[in-house]
Amino acid sequence: MSVLPGPEQLARFALAPGFRCAAAACGLKKSGALDLALVWSDAPCAAAGVFTTNRVQAAPVLVDRETLAAGGGRVRGVFANAGCANAVTGERGLADARRMQALGAAAIGARPGEVLVLSTGVIGAFLDMDRLAAGAAALRAPGASAAPGDAARAITTTDTGPKIAHAEVALPGGRARVAGFAKGAGMIHPRMATMLAVLTTDAAIEPARLARALRAAVARSFNRISVDGDMSTNDTVLVLASGAAGAAVDDAGEGAFTAALAEACAALARQIARDGEGATRLVELRVTGAVDEAMAHRVGDAIACSPLVKTAIHGNDPNWGRVLAAAGYSGAAIDPGRVRLWFGGGDDVQLLDCGLPLPFDRARAAELLRGDPAVLHVDLGLGGGATVVWTCDLSADYVRINAEYTT
Amino acid sequence: MSVLPGPEQLARFALAPGFRCAAAACGLKKSGALDLALVWSDAPCAAAGVFTTNRVQAAPVLVDRETLAAGGGRVRGVFANAGCANAVTGERGLADARRMQALGAAAIGARPGEVLVLSTGVIGAFLDMDRLAAGAAALRAPGASAAPGDAARAITTTDTGPKIAHAEVALPGGRARVAGFAKGAGMIHPRMATMLAVLTTDAAIEPARLARALRAAVARSFNRISVDGDMSTNDTVLVLASGAAGAAVDDAGEGAFTAALAEACAALARQIARDGEGATRLVELRVTGAVDEAMAHRVGDAIACSPLVKTAIHGNDPNWGRVLAAAGYSGAAIDPGRVRLWFGGGDDVQLLDCGLPLPFDRARAAELLRGDPAVLHVDLGLGGGATVVWTCDLSADYVRINAEYTT
Repeated sequence: MSVLPGPEQLARFALAPGFRCAAAACGLKKSGALDLALVWSDAPCAAAGVFTTNRVQAAPVLVDRETLAAGGGRVRGVFANAGCANAVTGERGLADARRMQALGAAAIGARPGEVLVLSTGVIGAFLDMDRLAAGAAALRAPGASAAPGDAARAITTTDTGPKIAHAEVALPGGRARVAGFAKGAGMIHPRMATMLAVLTTDAAIEPARLARALRAAVARSFNRISVDGDMSTNDTVLVLASGAAGAAVDDAGEGAFTAALAEACAALARQIARDGEGATRLVELRVTGAVDEAMAHRVGDAIACSPLVKTAIHGNDPNWGRVLAAAGYSGAAIDPGRVRLWFGGGDDVQLLDCGLPLPFDRARAAELLRGDPAVLHVDLGLGGGATVVWTCDLSADYVRINAEYTT
Repeated sequence: MSVLPGPEQLARFALAPGFRCAAAACGLKKSGALDLALVWSDAPCAAAGVFTTNRVQAAPVLVDRETLAAGGGRVRGVFANAGCANAVTGERGLADARRMQALGAAAIGARPGEVLVLSTGVIGAFLDMDRLAAGAAALRAPGASAAPGDAARAITTTDTGPKIAHAEVALPGGRARVAGFAKGAGMIHPRMATMLAVLTTDAAIEPARLARALRAAVARSFNRISVDGDMSTNDTVLVLASGAAGAAVDDAGEGAFTAALAEACAALARQIARDGEGATRLVELRVTGAVDEAMAHRVGDAIACSPLVKTAIHGNDPNWGRVLAAAGYSGAAIDPGRVRLWFGGGDDVQLLDCGLPLPFDRARAAELLRGDPAVLHVDLGLGGGATVVWTCDLSADYVRINAEYTT
């Protein structure tokens, strides 16, 4: 499939066995679109989360950290809203997030400490608890949608559409499935931070092992994307494991399970980057030849965050000097005289060889930048460290979308 | 005057006594506009420079570092071109920069080692040495302009106009003047980096003292601006001291001289930020209450680099949560519960008090964001560290300008 899912993929999208979901609209989005999602299991499941490293942490982030710690990583479900981030809301925001937990718990017959909460939207506004309470009731009323694609849609904000992903893994007791959804289009930057994502799996796995697998998967996926260098106060990735598959993740299976989780996370991460606000294409940056992976990541991160690189790609302008300039200010100890640069997934056009510009076919280079993804490959010529980082082009629409967000 | 100089200010602009200049067009700019500037003194003068910290350094940067070191900080002049950055050009670029030195030296009857060179424009292209040689000759021909405003205009690229500044200082032997010009509108970011700037003074000052004064002045000016978070390969600030005033800078006068130099540098820095590509206003970020100045700078830098903050200001959208989110991911150990935030030069509208949102007049807040400069004040509530950082709003025109730079 293309990077972003089409209507048919959304219609076919299913959570992992053992999980149900519901979606409703309660008016937190002024448009009247779906803005509430509930994902739950009838039995307690293992849960893990990775949260923003921003010093400013939204109330739901604080409550989820507390909930996971207090409950030993066992929960029943996740209750999410869009339209209000419940961030920078102080004690009242914390109380609101706890009340949101209770509303979600009541909807599925669980205790409040068994429900995680997610919020996304404007920072500094209080949740409308009356709407939220009415919405929580509506989620279990006969008219509510039980389609996972609708749950994915409900948590979107400036996204052009929902992000979904799935993966499978063979384990000792059978095959297990990983399926999840995510939102995110702005305020995306990979400093151990992510956007909202909910993953489900029917594998049987202990909370501590699940948490370790999630950290590893996030490092290879959500922490490798950047839309605008901004990190949200609400970024959260949650994974819930029902055990319904009967397939258990033990020491031997942890690697394969982590790989499947990372595969689903990476698919969601690419969809988030592709759906960057105003973006017209995914950009894949391959960095090789670094001293180590950290150095590769530092260089890739600087290039992915450079507005000049991203606008040049948007304009199909093979202005490769900006790529090298970004590598140069990344803080990594590159040697400009050893750097090589190509455009295209097959290293189609080489622009730079050991620090020297090469004559190149400008029309072909411009054509490669029009690709979706547009692929750039920088080799630092120093060692075996490598990474792949995803970002998007920067268009005038990014500015339009963000100049008028709250007004 | 307004932040950017008008035609009258440009017409009145003069270098410090002891300096002459010339400007010409040699075709390096496709438009045919002025693209060469020469500034010189008839007698050797003290010189100092501050250069980009990018690992990728343009040939003129390498040659200038070498020239200042070899000559003990004594030069006769500066030869600058726009239209080609002579960056990422390897050995050939170095040879071209040295030939450019020789051309400038021949034009003023100096030795090549007495001339500094500056280049700005596209990265990865070679200087057209035939055009440059013809242009160097034209600079001393009868028709060449000797107006300092034209020299300032010649080094601009995507700038909407030249940047000029002057300051005065009382010294033991009399008053001395500082006057200079700068260019820069994109690839601007304050990691000890600057754009092209040439400052002149008629104070008498030893090269080592001049270098120290320049470093201090740059730290308070060019290193406090950001347009897009990108750092150029060519960024250079040069200062030349003729001694024509008869006023000498000794230990006692160094502070006053540094202050005057910093004043001129800050005026140029503000003009560069105001003239950021596509910008419609200057943004002044005041950060107070930090543990120390470094922390204040870190927070100010993150806010100044946030595309979300800058687009919100462009849209007059008082979406202050983005300001706090940027402070939160700056890496500084802020305490969100102690942060206060105001818009307006007189702290006119308070939006946040000790981490909690306040009700505020949205229309008035939006009006303050329309100011030029738009002033934001963040108090971290932790200590006495403070700074001021300048940036600009981010408009769709930034994207348009940079999507089509080389094509």
